[in-house]
Amino acid sequence: MGKKNPTLYLVGLGLSPGNLTIDALNIIRSVDKVFMETYTSKAPGELIKQIMGIRHDVVFLSREDLEDRSGNAIMSELSKGRNAALLVIGDPMMATAHAAILVIAKRLGFEVKVINSVSIVCAILSQLGLSPYKLGPIATITYPRMGILSMRAYELLNDNLRRGLHTILLLDIKDGNEFMSAGEAIDLLRKMEENGKLGIINNDLLVIYAARIGWENQSIVVSTISNVPSLGETPHTIIIPGLLNPVEIDYLTYVLNADKDLVLKHQRWVNKLMNGNWQK
Amino acid sequence: MGKKNPTLYLVGLGLSPGNLTIDALNIIRSVDKVFMETYTSKAPGELIKQIMGIRHDVVFLSREDLEDRSGNAIMSELSKGRNAALLVIGDPMMATAHAAILVIAKRLGFEVKVINSVSIVCAILSQLGLSPYKLGPIATITYPRMGILSMRAYELLNDNLRRGLHTILLLDIKDGNEFMSAGEAIDLLRKMEENGKLGIINNDLLVIYAARIGWENQSIVVSTISNVPSLGETPHTIIIPGLLNPVEIDYLTYVLNADKDLVLKHQRWVNKLMNGNWQK
Repeated sequence: MGKKNPTLYLVGLGLSPGNLTIDALNIIRSVDKVFMETYTSKAPGELIKQIMGIRHDVVFLSREDLEDRSGNAIMSELSKGRNAALLVIGDPMMATAHAAILVIAKRLGFEVKVINSVSIVCAILSQLGLSPYKLGPIATITYPRMGILSMRAYELLNDNLRRGLHTILLLDIKDGNEFMSAGEAIDLLRKMEENGKLGIINNDLLVIYAARIGWENQSIVVSTISNVPSLGETPHTIIIPGLLNPVEIDYLTYVLNADKDLVLKHQRWVNKLMNGNWQK
Repeated sequence: MGKKNPTLYLVGLGLSPGNLTIDALNIIRSVDKVFMETYTSKAPGELIKQIMGIRHDVVFLSREDLEDRSGNAIMSELSKGRNAALLVIGDPMMATAHAAILVIAKRLGFEVKVINSVSIVCAILSQLGLSPYKLGPIATITYPRMGILSMRAYELLNDNLRRGLHTILLLDIKDGNEFMSAGEAIDLLRKMEENGKLGIINNDLLVIYAARIGWENQSIVVSTISNVPSLGETPHTIIIPGLLNPVEIDYLTYVLNADKDLVLKHQRWVNKLMNGNWQK
């Protein structure tokens, strides 16, 4: 197919149909072959319908297709001289599987290009009015694997709180392609507290519950650990803020209708943690 | 108009014309009045041209309009019962000025809605193949103000490196609306090292230089402090990786053409910092 090397585009779709960018749309329309993977993040039905409306010939790939079979289906298209796109939910922030596929394509001599879109990590900060400068490392709350509960998210939350940083807790996906709910996540956090005994999971902690960010029916509730709201359909995300500045407090209070007493109680608790006035 | 409260939409435009989302496009077309601010981030001419092509009646707001005059021009439109949009570059990740404007609108009884787009913070990780789970707090390298050089970015880089975390360093905007270049930023980092003497800014440090992320002519160069590449036009961004996993190393090496020896030298240095084998 001419002189130019075939290109593999890794295309972010964003979080909802309305997040689709002009670049993504153009590439989905113009490449020879479109693949889509739906296991590193769940693709909502409406989003899949939208994509199928643009290209009815999208090929869906499973975890095995990408990881065990090294994306053979994709490489085969490229080696026939065709441009291909691999669509992923959100911004293609580098899930190991995606980075590995691009490395394989590049080593086989093809061009690769990443097309950005809306990521939950940045979108959630915008929706909550929280400063990106105070975002600590993010974590995912995972289901126990072979009976073992990973303490990673809990330890990271502890580190972030002690530094006054905000924590975004993403929620695991079950094998059945269903997202963990906020309620399940809180139950796991409580179990981690039982095991880890750092004393951070208590009723003074402000918890912001978010559901379906970027969708028409997105829902954000500022509450506590002991008061988990009904959020409806997944995906859910949990955010535990660090030390809040005055504008962040105003935003939570006036725009997101947070109870000001809860916010101020949280401030005092984070201040205490930051000053080390609590058992290590 | 009618029964529904007027709404103020805070609309992210993304980083380049191709980042524009379907949601942003629909809102720009449908609201009664469109404002755009171009001082918290510089708007490239091509992006402004694109927006003016959609709406020729966009009103540009200065820092004074938003901060000193509390967005009076916007509030005036809303109070006449009109829906309005305030356009901002990137994802509207909550710059204090933007959050404050939404708080004012909400307190005056109007609805507010944030429309997400591509943010440099997430986009850069995708383009570099770096895991979002290892992103430490971000910082901005700022010009000296009244002769005083802020050490914040340097101290944060030190903290992140000691934890093996990646650091994104955003670059300041001059009053004249020009972005700081990567070269200027490195000069300032060297000055911070002279002042702070933590010994982190040295030739073993891997520095990833990025320019015009999301644009057709984006440029990414993996190099060192002592070897600043010519990147061309701003905006530039600097990323100093923490400890890299095998897929991240492969991505830097094969996709971004990094020198593997530089990468391995960096790994050893970060390992040393993480183990505390260096003067505090």
